[in-house]
Amino acid sequence: MKKAALIMGSDSDWDIVRPAAETLRKYGVPMEVHIMSAHRTPARAGEFARTARENGFGVLIAAAGKAAHLAGALAAHTTLPVIGIPVCSPPLGGVDALLATVQMPSGIPVATVAIDGGKNAALLAVQMLAIEDVSLAAALDREREEMAAGVEKKDEKLQQELGK
Amino acid sequence: MKKAALIMGSDSDWDIVRPAAETLRKYGVPMEVHIMSAHRTPARAGEFARTARENGFGVLIAAAGKAAHLAGALAAHTTLPVIGIPVCSPPLGGVDALLATVQMPSGIPVATVAIDGGKNAALLAVQMLAIEDVSLAAALDREREEMAAGVEKKDEKLQQELGK
Amino acid sequence: MKKAALIMGSDSDWDIVRPAAETLRKYGVPMEVHIMSAHRTPARAGEFARTARENGFGVLIAAAGKAAHLAGALAAHTTLPVIGIPVCSPPLGGVDALLATVQMPSGIPVATVAIDGGKNAALLAVQMLAIEDVSLAAALDREREEMAAGVEKKDEKLQQELGK
Amino acid sequence: MKKAALIMGSDSDWDIVRPAAETLRKYGVPMEVHIMSAHRTPARAGEFARTARENGFGVLIAAAGKAAHLAGALAAHTTLPVIGIPVCSPPLGGVDALLATVQMPSGIPVATVAIDGGKNAALLAVQMLAIEDVSLAAALDREREEMAAGVEKKDEKLQQELGK
Amino acid sequence: MKKAALIMGSDSDWDIVRPAAETLRKYGVPMEVHIMSAHRTPARAGEFARTARENGFGVLIAAAGKAAHLAGALAAHTTLPVIGIPVCSPPLGGVDALLATVQMPSGIPVATVAIDGGKNAALLAVQMLAIEDVSLAAALDREREEMAAGVEKKDEKLQQELGK
Amino acid sequence: MKKAALIMGSDSDWDIVRPAAETLRKYGVPMEVHIMSAHRTPARAGEFARTARENGFGVLIAAAGKAAHLAGALAAHTTLPVIGIPVCSPPLGGVDALLATVQMPSGIPVATVAIDGGKNAALLAVQMLAIEDVSLAAALDREREEMAAGVEKKDEKLQQELGK
Amino acid sequence: MKKAALIMGSDSDWDIVRPAAETLRKYGVPMEVHIMSAHRTPARAGEFARTARENGFGVLIAAAGKAAHLAGALAAHTTLPVIGIPVCSPPLGGVDALLATVQMPSGIPVATVAIDGGKNAALLAVQMLAIEDVSLAAALDREREEMAAGVEKKDEKLQQELGK
Amino acid sequence: MKKAALIMGSDSDWDIVRPAAETLRKYGVPMEVHIMSAHRTPARAGEFARTARENGFGVLIAAAGKAAHLAGALAAHTTLPVIGIPVCSPPLGGVDALLATVQMPSGIPVATVAIDGGKNAALLAVQMLAIEDVSLAAALDREREEMAAGVEKKDEKLQQELGK
Repeated sequence: MKKAALIMGSDSDWDIVRPAAETLRKYGVPMEVHIMSAHRTPARAGEFARTARENGFGVLIAAAGKAAHLAGALAAHTTLPVIGIPVCSPPLGGVDALLATVQMPSGIPVATVAIDGGKNAALLAVQMLAIEDVSLAAALDREREEMAAGVEKKDEKLQQELGK
Repeated sequence: MKKAALIMGSDSDWDIVRPAAETLRKYGVPMEVHIMSAHRTPARAGEFARTARENGFGVLIAAAGKAAHLAGALAAHTTLPVIGIPVCSPPLGGVDALLATVQMPSGIPVATVAIDGGKNAALLAVQMLAIEDVSLAAALDREREEMAAGVEKKDEKLQQELGK
Repeated sequence: MKKAALIMGSDSDWDIVRPAAETLRKYGVPMEVHIMSAHRTPARAGEFARTARENGFGVLIAAAGKAAHLAGALAAHTTLPVIGIPVCSPPLGGVDALLATVQMPSGIPVATVAIDGGKNAALLAVQMLAIEDVSLAAALDREREEMAAGVEKKDEKLQQELGK
Repeated sequence: MKKAALIMGSDSDWDIVRPAAETLRKYGVPMEVHIMSAHRTPARAGEFARTARENGFGVLIAAAGKAAHLAGALAAHTTLPVIGIPVCSPPLGGVDALLATVQMPSGIPVATVAIDGGKNAALLAVQMLAIEDVSLAAALDREREEMAAGVEKKDEKLQQELGK
Repeated sequence: MKKAALIMGSDSDWDIVRPAAETLRKYGVPMEVHIMSAHRTPARAGEFARTARENGFGVLIAAAGKAAHLAGALAAHTTLPVIGIPVCSPPLGGVDALLATVQMPSGIPVATVAIDGGKNAALLAVQMLAIEDVSLAAALDREREEMAAGVEKKDEKLQQELGK
Repeated sequence: MKKAALIMGSDSDWDIVRPAAETLRKYGVPMEVHIMSAHRTPARAGEFARTARENGFGVLIAAAGKAAHLAGALAAHTTLPVIGIPVCSPPLGGVDALLATVQMPSGIPVATVAIDGGKNAALLAVQMLAIEDVSLAAALDREREEMAAGVEKKDEKLQQELGK
Repeated sequence: MKKAALIMGSDSDWDIVRPAAETLRKYGVPMEVHIMSAHRTPARAGEFARTARENGFGVLIAAAGKAAHLAGALAAHTTLPVIGIPVCSPPLGGVDALLATVQMPSGIPVATVAIDGGKNAALLAVQMLAIEDVSLAAALDREREEMAAGVEKKDEKLQQELGK
Repeated sequence: MKKAALIMGSDSDWDIVRPAAETLRKYGVPMEVHIMSAHRTPARAGEFARTARENGFGVLIAAAGKAAHLAGALAAHTTLPVIGIPVCSPPLGGVDALLATVQMPSGIPVATVAIDGGKNAALLAVQMLAIEDVSLAAALDREREEMAAGVEKKDEKLQQELGK
């Protein structure tokens, strides 16, 4: 299976990236996690993206805050799909990161998820890898069913509490 | 090759969706284009998404404006990757559509591109299908090189004009 | 009397929904409270809305945050009036939920109240049921008078404190 | 049947209010249309709302722009449901009107629809009146089916065009 | 001297209004402080504004949050100058109150100060009363000089601390 | 009677300032109109404000766009009331000017009116001058009554049109 | 004298960059103008910035719209001062570009000017070069005086027109 | 070497300005730190800016919140480059300060950094002074390399932790 790369702009983004790493592990997707910055280590980030496909990666996930260029900077150096996680940071609450991640120019897309959407970024990566992987698709379907069952169980519990 | 689905909430979104269709065609990705609405034909949209994988689709692209639920509504019924295009419409210029598309709850990701980002949505879909398709990946790389060459040619032309 | 349905997208919305439930109870409006998600249990939410009128409901209230599709998803399956409560959640403070709830396309209205406006959503539901129910209308009028009297009492107390 | 009142703050709001009037007429809902301003004719607006229920109204619809107080000012004088239409006006595009209409204090709800959502305001009014009116409910259901059929017809037409 | 009226929509606005009351007291401006609501006690608020000039008031100050109609509702009933204080309240931080206060329609102005700008509202009221009152104008000028001297003293203190 | 000063940051603001000048003229308020810039002619603007009271002015009105410092810069040099008109300019539509005008620090208030609110700025100035001027107050009251009568006349005309 | 570089992300930014070029020419600052993209030609842009100081540049100016990474991407490769011009583009009017340009992480500053502020970007560059260049500083002072004189001349003309 | 001036509008801005002072000290740039207000001590601020160049300053840095006029007010009185730091303050989180600082009119630029970007403002000042100062430029380059090395060290540490 192709690997997923989880890149964060700063180690302070680990809280947002950790749920992504856990989700990838749960689905058995091989991964690498790195700290690289579009602004502080641009050469390394560019080199990583440029060689990602030949190094066995299938998808890149990048988390960054403020003028969040990381996902876009990686996307500029690869044609692998790049998923961007805008990270919430004061004082603008991630609106700056959201716009800097999603409003990419024509030709260089970034698949943007919700602000601080670490888990969804990983799920999206798994969905991409599952396009051609039947067992991974089945695992995704199973989790959906469990998720739905979880909501229904909560509703039943609520009915019991309200019925008392 | 897996198919891509291009779904728009209204035929007035065709201007945004057309560049996506042209891009998919250029890469030889088989596709279907449909008008379906999360609010006006919810049953059909749900049914389409639920059966999309078994019907040979690998990725869904949805374009909608205002309280843009279409991408999320499709994503609720499939574990295929869903790409959302927030469509600009007056008077909020697509900010409503952007937030309604990207701020998805945990468990149901939507890969969001820029407001009116039809071409990028299609490129992202091609990138997903290219994870396991070497020739598609090569085609993407070639376009990148042409794009870079195009920018350089424009710069050369500018130098000539300024040099006069 | 027709029933009111109180639907929340997640049990974490209970703090916002509880004042709505208490208000409905205070007015003696029969109700059901449920946890259903537009994205995690779309089929159940759709089924509930589709059969709501024949099951004796007169109005549906839906509370959801972020890309808040719940009210709109219910409205897509019924012609009963649907009231949407945009729920505040970090980091965007409910602006995402407000726009995703109120900016509905033509043909499928959602009666939107203020962010976290649980009590007002219930009052609005009572007002709808009171259009044809004289005693319910009288009860609403009484509460208005009490509310006004409460403000006046606070003003009198303030005058006494300032007069000292 | 109870009447609906359509109140606009200025005759320049007629373009937004007209589709509401046409929708009410289509459903056979008796109505009155008035120009009244929360700021220029506050006494008349208050008097109208205070006597609306005894004058046979079941629901009030108010359209206003900028610091749009009209819906809230009417709601302050009646316990009939009040529907607010925030009207788009330069330079803020109706965001001012949306917030001034929807963010009502606890105790005085306004059922807010989308910016410039004239038709949806009227549909919402019809839905309220249809809670206790079976034939009105049936008419609403029929229009929904026609609306869905219209979307499907457009999709079929698109398939034919693309198939050529 | 004409009186100033300080009106707040709810007793929870007292923290914002108190600095205004203290500033008026400091300048010896006679005043009344009241709790009145544009939505909960509209008749009283209207009556107060309508009779304010004959009751010896020269200026009205109104503080309210969310869909802050109070200042505009008073202004609708008087041609005395009305100063509006938009009150910050979660989750929108007073942006709703700011727009609902400042974006008044042509013909009915509200003199809006900063969000939570209680002290400035009172200073503005004193400035209005000082147009024709030489000693009040002199008192305002003295405070300005003290304010400037205060900033300069802080700068001197900073120089000493940095010089060590 | 005290004079009003109308200051604009640039001659391109004349469209916004002209209705203010016409309104002042209509009420017989003596005035001066000037072009002065907080940034391009700061010394002149400061000097004008510093000597405004002794030169017979009772109120200053300032119109400026973008980072609109003009009203605040005048207010920094006088204790006369200063009214700020945020001028709409692309691309932010006057939101920048609104915030730069209204969010003044404690101690230096600016009475802010709506974006492009030229007429209301003048009316507010007249209201300030009318605090101690009975005939000016009477003139303001008369215009209010005419305004109300105008709205009612439009409503009557509408009834006739709809009645046909 | 050190050179200034004017870099635009796309030839469609020429309208914004041209006034910058004209301003630099007016002050006799040697310059180069280039089209380079942070996303389409990242290697060239990086190389240009990395070698800019040794190639005789003293300051870089970058103009880009949407998720405007260009100024930041250049700044990541040089310690020369980089000036960013956020370019207005529909539908967000340059707010996306402003935030993506100005909200840079600690360590990599970008000197941001107003949206579409081409002329000011060039003036700022001249100001930087004038820190150590007395004649350039004198030229800047002269233009300021002319600018002030221009405003005063417009005011005089206005007085004549109003005096008629 | 030319001096840098660090001006803050209020001593409450010291937390934002301190990192700027420390950065300037680290690079050996001579500096003065002052408290001056565009609104409370406009004459002193203007005088300081007007004489800054002849007093040996090469660059001015100004930090202010809300309707942040300080940087622009200084820029109006000097042709030295002025760097503006928008200071975050409740309730708008510095958006008001950002727009009031960056949206300067043509002819008077302010080099704006991120909200609360004290350190970056100082780095930008050092970069300006380093245009003609080879050793200062070398110091900046060294810090960049250390910064990059710091990120790489954190990545290595992360690999060790993940490898366990």
